[in-house]
Amino acid sequence: MPLGLNERAWKQLENVRRDEFELKTSQQKLNCGTEVFDFGVNVRGGIDAGLRLAEICLAGLGRVSLTNGLLGDWNWPVICTWTDHPVAACLASQYAGWQLGYDNYFGMGSGPMRAAAAREDLFQEIGFTESPEHAVGVIESSQLPTDDVALDIAQKCGVPPENLALLVAPTASSAGTLQVVARSVETALHKMHELGYDVSNIECGFGVAPLPPVAANDLEGIGRTNDAVLYGANVSLWVTGEDSEIEAIGDRIPAEASPDYGRPFLEIFENAGRDFYKIDPHLFSPAEIMIQNLDTGRVFRYGKLNPDVLVESFQIVDPSETPEASA
Amino acid sequence: MPLGLNERAWKQLENVRRDEFELKTSQQKLNCGTEVFDFGVNVRGGIDAGLRLAEICLAGLGRVSLTNGLLGDWNWPVICTWTDHPVAACLASQYAGWQLGYDNYFGMGSGPMRAAAAREDLFQEIGFTESPEHAVGVIESSQLPTDDVALDIAQKCGVPPENLALLVAPTASSAGTLQVVARSVETALHKMHELGYDVSNIECGFGVAPLPPVAANDLEGIGRTNDAVLYGANVSLWVTGEDSEIEAIGDRIPAEASPDYGRPFLEIFENAGRDFYKIDPHLFSPAEIMIQNLDTGRVFRYGKLNPDVLVESFQIVDPSETPEASA
Amino acid sequence: MPLGLNERAWKQLENVRRDEFELKTSQQKLNCGTEVFDFGVNVRGGIDAGLRLAEICLAGLGRVSLTNGLLGDWNWPVICTWTDHPVAACLASQYAGWQLGYDNYFGMGSGPMRAAAAREDLFQEIGFTESPEHAVGVIESSQLPTDDVALDIAQKCGVPPENLALLVAPTASSAGTLQVVARSVETALHKMHELGYDVSNIECGFGVAPLPPVAANDLEGIGRTNDAVLYGANVSLWVTGEDSEIEAIGDRIPAEASPDYGRPFLEIFENAGRDFYKIDPHLFSPAEIMIQNLDTGRVFRYGKLNPDVLVESFQIVDPSETPEASA
Repeated sequence: MPLGLNERAWKQLENVRRDEFELKTSQQKLNCGTEVFDFGVNVRGGIDAGLRLAEICLAGLGRVSLTNGLLGDWNWPVICTWTDHPVAACLASQYAGWQLGYDNYFGMGSGPMRAAAAREDLFQEIGFTESPEHAVGVIESSQLPTDDVALDIAQKCGVPPENLALLVAPTASSAGTLQVVARSVETALHKMHELGYDVSNIECGFGVAPLPPVAANDLEGIGRTNDAVLYGANVSLWVTGEDSEIEAIGDRIPAEASPDYGRPFLEIFENAGRDFYKIDPHLFSPAEIMIQNLDTGRVFRYGKLNPDVLVESFQIVDPSETPEASA
Repeated sequence: MPLGLNERAWKQLENVRRDEFELKTSQQKLNCGTEVFDFGVNVRGGIDAGLRLAEICLAGLGRVSLTNGLLGDWNWPVICTWTDHPVAACLASQYAGWQLGYDNYFGMGSGPMRAAAAREDLFQEIGFTESPEHAVGVIESSQLPTDDVALDIAQKCGVPPENLALLVAPTASSAGTLQVVARSVETALHKMHELGYDVSNIECGFGVAPLPPVAANDLEGIGRTNDAVLYGANVSLWVTGEDSEIEAIGDRIPAEASPDYGRPFLEIFENAGRDFYKIDPHLFSPAEIMIQNLDTGRVFRYGKLNPDVLVESFQIVDPSETPEASA
Repeated sequence: MPLGLNERAWKQLENVRRDEFELKTSQQKLNCGTEVFDFGVNVRGGIDAGLRLAEICLAGLGRVSLTNGLLGDWNWPVICTWTDHPVAACLASQYAGWQLGYDNYFGMGSGPMRAAAAREDLFQEIGFTESPEHAVGVIESSQLPTDDVALDIAQKCGVPPENLALLVAPTASSAGTLQVVARSVETALHKMHELGYDVSNIECGFGVAPLPPVAANDLEGIGRTNDAVLYGANVSLWVTGEDSEIEAIGDRIPAEASPDYGRPFLEIFENAGRDFYKIDPHLFSPAEIMIQNLDTGRVFRYGKLNPDVLVESFQIVDPSETPEASA
């Protein structure tokens, strides 16, 4: 790669600084020198903030757009994501695999800083790490990080704190909600990796998911954004290899393959005693997936959309009609 | 705002001049120094001209795109518009609130020049005006303005005539048609403002409307573009505040709430004796609206699409099938 | 035209060179000086490579995008194409009208080099040729061209070989597949020209077609990409002139008007004894077309989508449900 993931993301920050007003974001330097970009904690953010955050989280190796779509038979805004570098953009960067747990701070870390820290087993498995000059992280949190948090992250990434940038959005914010549902392709890759599929076979990905309404609190936000993927996301992948490698796992990829599937995520979470680790990890996957094999020309489809659960999850008030399942 | 609405629009004119051939537009200087851009009076204009005109009319604070969509069950090109600054972009700029009536000239004025002139009560109500160095106006008219018209507009905007730019497209032109249906979000804001809703609560807007066929004359063009919004537009708004503020007006927002609703706009206009002022002002609104409250996380839906009226309005000849209502 | 088709395309090559890694393409200079860009022969290419290739093939006078759409009732990625210069972009450049047949090389030539060589009768008919300084060609082939091929093309285009650039993608590659289905508008224009319609009346075009899965070999690729257009493409045209000119040919425009219509293209090809010249040339056309007359305001629709044939053509394995025709 002629430019590392972190350097690609770092280059995009200049435009974020310039467009602070348009994006309804803000930035500040911590004492340690780390620059913190607020995409929705003390500011509103918006649609464009969410699109930029999502593309930075993909290290600039993917595209994210807002367009018209359907939720069942209803018109509904949707988020499209595509990449020609799915392992690097989605697994090495976008996946929210770094749990940031400190005495005074909690957040889910994603973005290219993960590839610099390379603390997760995933990086050994996909054989991708880097030692960049700068590091860029995206944090899903309702708080801005403190100096202590930034210093620890910088150290783990092997960069001086002034070369670290952290972009923060709560799940229950416009930008945070948008960037989470821009993970439709990532969710498919992660699930397939968990099922033992060699994700280095995945050449390109395209995904679409309904943009959920922003929740009133982060817990409900986690519910809605998960539901948008589990019950509303459609993903297409271009892969190489044997058809048998796809068929061996195909019907286990979509969310419907999980015994926990079928109810809004928050209800599943409550039933699990609010313990994430009691939820079937294989639940986290798109509703629908189409895999085409570049080597054999065959196409495989699994799963289907379930808009009824989305209408319930999104707490839509007095709709004049309920949508009908489109699949 | 680090840059005013008029200065934002002014900066975009450079690319319009450069791309005259590609856009199929033309520009000329009046004797008084005002630059007039023709988007469809003596030239053809086209799709790209319409997209540029629409984004300039939003003062560069919104995005407009052409994509695929549906008209009932038919495939149909649609125009998507979104903004993170809906009051500034839509009400202070895009709304066609300035009626330009001169002895020898008539047109509907929109664009940021309105915020410089601030002649409408609306500007006091939304608390937004500016005193820019340059002014940019968009005029829906079948004629190019004369020196007299430009001098009067410049004076009302408080700029020298050489610092005024006027972009003109007839309703019955490709660019004019496109830019009018790029007003789906604006129409929702204006109606809600009329209903007493505090539009400063509206953080973001996304709208989609079918691109009507260009009419043979401006009167039919007004009919089709209004119908595209009244019967074909779907708008999503992200707002703050109390749910009760939404619920108090919700079912009055969509066009269907008007007693005049149900027939093609031109027929309504004829029934009103060709007198706009006899038409219910509350008719002008999108067909369908979804409002999500960022403070409470609740989502409200009102209205529905009515493609049957659009098929009639668009004068589609011998379709092999009629579309079925999708909502 | 302030800048010729070939010069427009030539300017875009700089970004292709720069983005070699992101696009998964490569480039090399032949001994004769011609630069050959590989979009899928010895490299993978991808979605972005396909979008760039398609826009270069339109000489930069059209836009191509990937977005969400439907294949019957299924979600499916689609390619949208639009242009305000349909004759120049589609017929003089994008149409694959130059058959490159050499002892050691075969390919279908498209792109602006065709307007420089002007070897096809089509150029006399549309009255468009150019004598550029540089020439840019797009070749659908499974091989990269040799010096002999490049020298011959350069000579026919009237440029020195070092001023020729050739971009190559096999039909059965990601970029090749995408760029072929970006020809929805072109296919409509070519068919209408064949039917005797004066294509200089066509002001703008917008088309959408499903992105077919990449085939395992070029023959199947030709099948799928043709089927995506014949059974899956929807095109809108903005024209001038008399309604009677449209009505005279309207119902002959869509693919369904051909007696060969109804089965996957490869089956039609086999039935014709694998002889292209025995296939009805009028088969090659979009499934559905909407023509609006800018002069009269009337709108005409012909044809309909046929997703059942696409599901068969795309060899989709064990779908949980079959899509229902949407038209």
